[in-house]
Amino acid sequence: MKSFKEMNKEELLELKGELENKYNEEKALGLSLDMSRGKPSSTQLNVSMGLLDVLSSSSVLKSENGVDCRNYGASDGIPEAKKLMADIMGTTPDKVIVYGNASLNVMYDTVARSYTHGILGSTPWCKLDTIKFLCPVPGYDRHFAITERFGIEMINIPMTTKGPDMDLIEKYVSEDESIKGIWCVPKYSNPQGISYSNETVSRFANLKPAAKDFRIYWDNAYAIHHLYEDNQDEILDIIGECARAGNPDMVFEFSSTSKVSFPGSGVAALATSAANIAEFKDQLTIQTIGHDKINQLRHVKYFKNIDGLNAHMKKHADQMRPKFEAVIEVLKNELGGLEIGSWIAPKGGYFISFEALEGCAKAIVAKCKDAGVVMTNAGATYPYGKDPKNSNIRIAPSFPEPQELLQATDLFVLCVKIVSVEKLLELL
Amino acid sequence: MKSFKEMNKEELLELKGELENKYNEEKALGLSLDMSRGKPSSTQLNVSMGLLDVLSSSSVLKSENGVDCRNYGASDGIPEAKKLMADIMGTTPDKVIVYGNASLNVMYDTVARSYTHGILGSTPWCKLDTIKFLCPVPGYDRHFAITERFGIEMINIPMTTKGPDMDLIEKYVSEDESIKGIWCVPKYSNPQGISYSNETVSRFANLKPAAKDFRIYWDNAYAIHHLYEDNQDEILDIIGECARAGNPDMVFEFSSTSKVSFPGSGVAALATSAANIAEFKDQLTIQTIGHDKINQLRHVKYFKNIDGLNAHMKKHADQMRPKFEAVIEVLKNELGGLEIGSWIAPKGGYFISFEALEGCAKAIVAKCKDAGVVMTNAGATYPYGKDPKNSNIRIAPSFPEPQELLQATDLFVLCVKIVSVEKLLELL
Repeated sequence: MKSFKEMNKEELLELKGELENKYNEEKALGLSLDMSRGKPSSTQLNVSMGLLDVLSSSSVLKSENGVDCRNYGASDGIPEAKKLMADIMGTTPDKVIVYGNASLNVMYDTVARSYTHGILGSTPWCKLDTIKFLCPVPGYDRHFAITERFGIEMINIPMTTKGPDMDLIEKYVSEDESIKGIWCVPKYSNPQGISYSNETVSRFANLKPAAKDFRIYWDNAYAIHHLYEDNQDEILDIIGECARAGNPDMVFEFSSTSKVSFPGSGVAALATSAANIAEFKDQLTIQTIGHDKINQLRHVKYFKNIDGLNAHMKKHADQMRPKFEAVIEVLKNELGGLEIGSWIAPKGGYFISFEALEGCAKAIVAKCKDAGVVMTNAGATYPYGKDPKNSNIRIAPSFPEPQELLQATDLFVLCVKIVSVEKLLELL
Repeated sequence: MKSFKEMNKEELLELKGELENKYNEEKALGLSLDMSRGKPSSTQLNVSMGLLDVLSSSSVLKSENGVDCRNYGASDGIPEAKKLMADIMGTTPDKVIVYGNASLNVMYDTVARSYTHGILGSTPWCKLDTIKFLCPVPGYDRHFAITERFGIEMINIPMTTKGPDMDLIEKYVSEDESIKGIWCVPKYSNPQGISYSNETVSRFANLKPAAKDFRIYWDNAYAIHHLYEDNQDEILDIIGECARAGNPDMVFEFSSTSKVSFPGSGVAALATSAANIAEFKDQLTIQTIGHDKINQLRHVKYFKNIDGLNAHMKKHADQMRPKFEAVIEVLKNELGGLEIGSWIAPKGGYFISFEALEGCAKAIVAKCKDAGVVMTNAGATYPYGKDPKNSNIRIAPSFPEPQELLQATDLFVLCVKIVSVEKLLELL
C-alpha cells in the first residue's frame, strides 16, 4: 500500500470511507479483549503449577542454615533464596534482601522511607521543599504513580536505542541537588523493550550527583525474560559498576519472580551495597516480623538454581514469542510503509511500544475501546499521564489467547489507520 | 515459706547464701533456654502442616467470584479470605482488606501513611510539630518501636484488670489535638493477658477526640487464641460500637493468622469503616500489585470457616495450656506468699506478665541471662524501653519444649528470690 503521507485529499477520503465501513463491521462483533496490562495469560501460568507440589505436610521446612521457615526470624530472607535472587540480578547473595511477594511494594517502601527517614543520614525528603526524579520516557506507569503520590516532581528524559539520554541525565544529576532519583527498567524496558548498552550502564555508575542521597532505582523486572534462546540481551551488573566507580551506595536494584512463577505469589528482592543493606535491615526490624520464608523455600526447591530458572523461562518464552511475533507481523503487514507509525521488535520483556503520528494516541486508544479492545491508556507511559506528543501506545500481547490477540491487533491497526487518515486530512 | 518482707536481716542473709549456692549449681549446668518471644514451638507448628497439602498442581486456583488467584488483581483480597478474617475479628467482610503475611507490617504502613499523606484529608503528620500516641502499659514492644521510629511522643497509660485507664484516656484524647492514636491489644493483652471489659470497649467507642485524625489502633492479635474451651473471654466488636456511637472512622482493627497457621507465612487483615477502606484501597493501587492470593486461598481451603479455625485453635491450646499452667504452678509454689512478685493467670494469648518488687526487673533478667535463660529485656513492655518502676517482666512460655520450660521457670523464680532478697537487704 502507498504511504498515507503521499495521498491527496481525495484518496484519503476514499480510504477513510472504506476503513470506517470495516471498523463498523468489527464493532458489530462485540469484541471484549484486553491488551492493556503486562499480565500473563492463564495458559502461561499453567507452566508454573508444579510450584504447588514441592512442599507438603511431610516436607522438612528448614533453610540451609537451619532456620525453621515456618516460624519468625530471618527477616532478610533465607540464604538459598538470596542466592537465587542474586543470580537473577547478576549479583552476589550478600548484597540481597529477600522481601515479600511484589517488588513494586519494595520500591514504594524505599521511596516512602526516604521520604520519612532519609537515606544514610541525609535529610528526610518530607522536610525538603522540592524533590525531583528523572523519568526516562516512555516508561512504567506504576513507577511514576509512586513518585507522583509523594509529590515528587518528575522530569522526562527521552529514551534512545541504547537507554535514556545520558548527556541530559549527567547534566541534571550533577547540577541539581533536588534530584534524588531516576526510574530505570534497564533490560527489555517497559514499554520499548530496549536494553541499556554497556556504555549507558557505565555512565550511570559514574554519575557525580549533587545530592548525596541520589539513587538509581534500577527495576530489573525482566532480567531473565528473554523471547529467544539464541538472541538475548545482557546488561552490565550496575552494582559492581557503581562499586568500581567509587559510587557503591548509588543504586537500589529491584527484582521479583512475579512473571517467573505467579504474579502476586512470587518472591521479590532488593540488591544494593553493604551500607544500604544495613540501613534497610534496621528498618525491617521495625517494619515487619519477616517475609514469607515458606514461599521462599518453595521457590528454591522448585527452581533449584539459575539453570532451572532459565529452563523455566524458556517455557514462558515458548508462549510469549509467537504472540510477540504475531503482533509484529500484523504491524509490519498492515502498517509497513504507510508512514503512520513505528515500533521496535523486542527480544524480551512484556511490551511492544508503538509510536503513532503526533497527536493520535488518545484517539486510537479511544477508538479501540469503542470496539471492545482495551489498550493501556494513552499517556500512561509518561509522568502525570501526559505524553507531550500524544503519540505513544503500549501494547501488551501477553494476556489474550493467540486467536484473541490477532483479533485485537487487527482492530488496533485499523484504528491506527483511521485516526491517522483523519489527522492527515486535518493537516491538509 | 515466710514472706520475705517479714524477714529480718539475719534471716535474709542466710537465705541469700542458700539461694546463691543453688544459683551457682544451676549456672554450672550451662543452660541455653529462651522465654523471650511469643514464638510457637516447632512441635506446635506441626499442627498446621496440613496447610501445605490443600493446594497442588491439579487444584483450580479460582476465588469464589472467579478471580484467578495465580495472577494480578484483587489487591484487597479474595472474598472468601475477607470472610474468614472478618469472622476472626467479629466483623463483616465488607469492612475488611486482606493484606500480606504480617499485621505488624500493616500497622507500620498505617502509621507511615498517616505520616506521609494524612488520614481522610487531614494534615500529614510529617508537617506537624508534635504527634503523640497513648500507650497502655505494660504493652507490646513492637508497637512502641513503630511510633518511636516516627518520632511520635508516647504517653504511658496504666492498665487495670478491665483494660487501660479510661478516665485518663478520655481526658487526654478530648483535650489534646496532637494525640493521634492509641495502641491497644484488646483481647488477652500483650503481656498481661487482660481482655477489655464491655464498659471499656464502649468508652473507647464513645471517645470525643480533639483530633479528627485520632484513631484507635486495635491490634486484635489474639482474637481466637484461647487456652480453655470452657473459660474464654469475648470482647465487643469495636467497629460496630464505634459506628453506633457516631464515630465510624475512629478505629483501625488488625489481625492475622501468624499464630494460627505459620508466623511469617500467614495472612493479615485490616478492618475499618467504609471511608477508611476506600482510602486504604486507593493507596494500595499505588503501593502494590496485590498480596498473595494463593496463600489466601490456601488458608480458606484448609480452615474452611470460623468453626474450622476454632477447632484448629484447640490443637494449639492443647500445647499451650500445659505450658502456661506449668509456669503458673511454679510461680505459685515458689513465690506464693513471699510478697516479692505478682502475676495474672491468663485465659489466652501468648504471655504471662510478672510484676517484681520495684527496681528489680533488670537485675532479675540479667541474672537469668547469666545462667543461660533469655527473657524479654526488662523495660521492653514500656515505651522507649523505660519501665518507670523497673518491675515488669514478660514471660513467653510458648517456645521452649515442656521440660526446658520447667528448667527455665525454676531458674527464673530463683533469680526473682535472689534479687528480691538483695533489694530487701538494701532497704533495711
